[in-house]
Amino acid sequence: MSRTWRVGVAGLGTVGAELVRFLQAQPDFAPGRDRVEVTAVSARDRARPRPCRLEGLAWFDDPVELARSPGIDLFVELIGGAEGAAKAAVLAALDAGKPVCTANKAMIAHHGQALADLAEAKDVPLLFEAAVMGGTPAVKLLREGLLGEDVRTLAGILNGTCNFILSEMERSERSFGEVLSEAQRLGYAEADPTTDVGGFDAGHKIAILAALAFGYAPNLECAEISGIERIELLDIRLARDLGYRIKLIASAQREAGGAVVRVAPALVPLAHPLAQAGGALNALFVEGARVGRLYLQGPGAGAGPTAAAVAADIADVIAGARRPVFQRPANELLPCPPADPGHRSGKVFIRLMVHDRPGVIAAVSEALAKAQVSIDSFLQRPVDETGVVPIVLTTQPASEAAVADAVGHIAELDALVQPPRVLPLARI
Amino acid sequence: MSRTWRVGVAGLGTVGAELVRFLQAQPDFAPGRDRVEVTAVSARDRARPRPCRLEGLAWFDDPVELARSPGIDLFVELIGGAEGAAKAAVLAALDAGKPVCTANKAMIAHHGQALADLAEAKDVPLLFEAAVMGGTPAVKLLREGLLGEDVRTLAGILNGTCNFILSEMERSERSFGEVLSEAQRLGYAEADPTTDVGGFDAGHKIAILAALAFGYAPNLECAEISGIERIELLDIRLARDLGYRIKLIASAQREAGGAVVRVAPALVPLAHPLAQAGGALNALFVEGARVGRLYLQGPGAGAGPTAAAVAADIADVIAGARRPVFQRPANELLPCPPADPGHRSGKVFIRLMVHDRPGVIAAVSEALAKAQVSIDSFLQRPVDETGVVPIVLTTQPASEAAVADAVGHIAELDALVQPPRVLPLARI
Repeated sequence: MSRTWRVGVAGLGTVGAELVRFLQAQPDFAPGRDRVEVTAVSARDRARPRPCRLEGLAWFDDPVELARSPGIDLFVELIGGAEGAAKAAVLAALDAGKPVCTANKAMIAHHGQALADLAEAKDVPLLFEAAVMGGTPAVKLLREGLLGEDVRTLAGILNGTCNFILSEMERSERSFGEVLSEAQRLGYAEADPTTDVGGFDAGHKIAILAALAFGYAPNLECAEISGIERIELLDIRLARDLGYRIKLIASAQREAGGAVVRVAPALVPLAHPLAQAGGALNALFVEGARVGRLYLQGPGAGAGPTAAAVAADIADVIAGARRPVFQRPANELLPCPPADPGHRSGKVFIRLMVHDRPGVIAAVSEALAKAQVSIDSFLQRPVDETGVVPIVLTTQPASEAAVADAVGHIAELDALVQPPRVLPLARI
Repeated sequence: MSRTWRVGVAGLGTVGAELVRFLQAQPDFAPGRDRVEVTAVSARDRARPRPCRLEGLAWFDDPVELARSPGIDLFVELIGGAEGAAKAAVLAALDAGKPVCTANKAMIAHHGQALADLAEAKDVPLLFEAAVMGGTPAVKLLREGLLGEDVRTLAGILNGTCNFILSEMERSERSFGEVLSEAQRLGYAEADPTTDVGGFDAGHKIAILAALAFGYAPNLECAEISGIERIELLDIRLARDLGYRIKLIASAQREAGGAVVRVAPALVPLAHPLAQAGGALNALFVEGARVGRLYLQGPGAGAGPTAAAVAADIADVIAGARRPVFQRPANELLPCPPADPGHRSGKVFIRLMVHDRPGVIAAVSEALAKAQVSIDSFLQRPVDETGVVPIVLTTQPASEAAVADAVGHIAELDALVQPPRVLPLARI
């Protein structure tokens, strides 16, 4: 039996317009006998030129009205934003028993539990492949490919803007500020870049992936987020001299009786695939007990890849699979238990800017030794005309408390001209 | 409503035994309320020690009887081999209306059309994620993630044994024969290694992926297959000097009114992720018009990853999705149209072993120029004590007919001490 799925699309930016264009061009893209027809849309500006046809489509100024409309069977939300119209429209669609496909990472990260509760109560799918890594099927991998897997590590490059900036700083030997300005001119970064460069966008995404991998309710509170604003070209160069590249790594690990969900600039060994994903690429490394070490890479944004991910979700709705929104039923999702900081451990990179005086290295070594932190590699560069010299070192695995203790003592040394810079080594 | 799926597993080698162990340990691994219970098994040797419990399971000497048994709801085929018991049992299970999950790439590559016809006529799923790249979801990506996508290129490292041998030849500077012997001692290669090193295993896998990506009936006849037996350490070294690594690349491309499906040792630029997937890793590069350039990497074999892929398929059956076996309905699968060789083109690497005489380079250049083949890079190494010198070059894109013409003329030069070695550059 053949059926036509009437689709309503809210939000006609580049992704929404590309999705409508694709569905109009290939209404039978989903295998089987069902077809898709976009019947209604909602956006702010009707007159804006778009690559899709709007004639014959019902127009709604209010996306909530579109979501409730009896003229659609499936609702696509591409408005964006955790709150407001996007959330109201998705709740309305689910409440009306309509499947929802969305690219809205902020909404899923903030309200995933409530949305999953409603979707499962109404027994309708809520799909969000496009929320993470564009057309690269990270969500499908974790939701469907790794069931029953004891996932040990997720570590990804989930924000293309940050990856572009860090790659370009290294390539062109320019400062963060210079490259950010260029990225803004080219349209790769927003006028207010905080969401991207502050790590918040990557934070939304890793909160979603951690929920899928570990069976947690998505929880941004659980994530420690820092951005790339303070990364200097010198850090990039010195890390490279030690065999690493600095990437904004969004990671999730179970340890010390809980989970560490974190976004932070981190050192990745040059030979690891995550170190080699340059430019605006996104990438995800997953390690599981049975499945081993998997790696996915692809464009993380852009109208084509993002619309392709939404279309794949629409096809999944049509295929009729019934799965919990987050790999386990919404009423069985666990709270994300923060790992006990006293028992968390890892390797770190420490950069010190010191006046070149006898005894500095001895004092640094002593502070580390006292805190039981062992040095893995150590590099001092020649003194320049300012008399200030960078010293960098990486440690063996050590508890975060011990590292904080040692760094506290080092920070008090007279020879230091600025506070120590501490970056984690990615645990991959 | 909760349900228990009674699963029958035929084939209790390392993968089958690991799958049974996993399902016994986590009968509720699939999300939702359904459970899985292994109720019956079939294998050749009942007494062999295995990591799973066999007490309480019905034992069948004949897998076909197991497949038909009213005591199972879902049949898992892990016997292997394109024909014989595996195929008979899968046909029996489908005919009895039971979903089938299999890791059998040879059977799917050879008989995919007939099996899909039967599965779709009976409206039961036939899933084979484990047939390609173990637990890395290459099949799911192509079947579900890239619907409606104009896939332009598939290129993968799909045989871990060949990748191990080539990586190890480069690392340890040993010959193919030496490394193969070591791989056989270590159990990484079979006593008769033809299926792996001859490229046939990768051929089965790329035939399956091409069917999923392009909507073709799987067709091994359409694939051109060559192996790595003739790759010399010298080729590996010289390719590297030109900035490439030799990998056994399984590829599928649409061009010249048809498709080129091929397994061949090919040159991959050192900076491409496919060049960096070393050891026994598998990897797949996919380029689509909308979705861009995607890359997946993971262990391609081993009991854990392969059993994890079968378990994911079982969960998909439980989730109840209804999809065609090969991304489009079996009765709409197209024949794989071979590309017209006169219109196929690409870049190639040519290695010549010549006596060092004046005029050799001029003669080689002339033969290429006459056939309208342009040289991209050229390298001659110093003459050693034998007076024989390797000359290697890579070409600009040229038709395969033109390259064959030029190589034919070069092969007739008196200075040559062995026939020219021609390898394609991977089109990635």
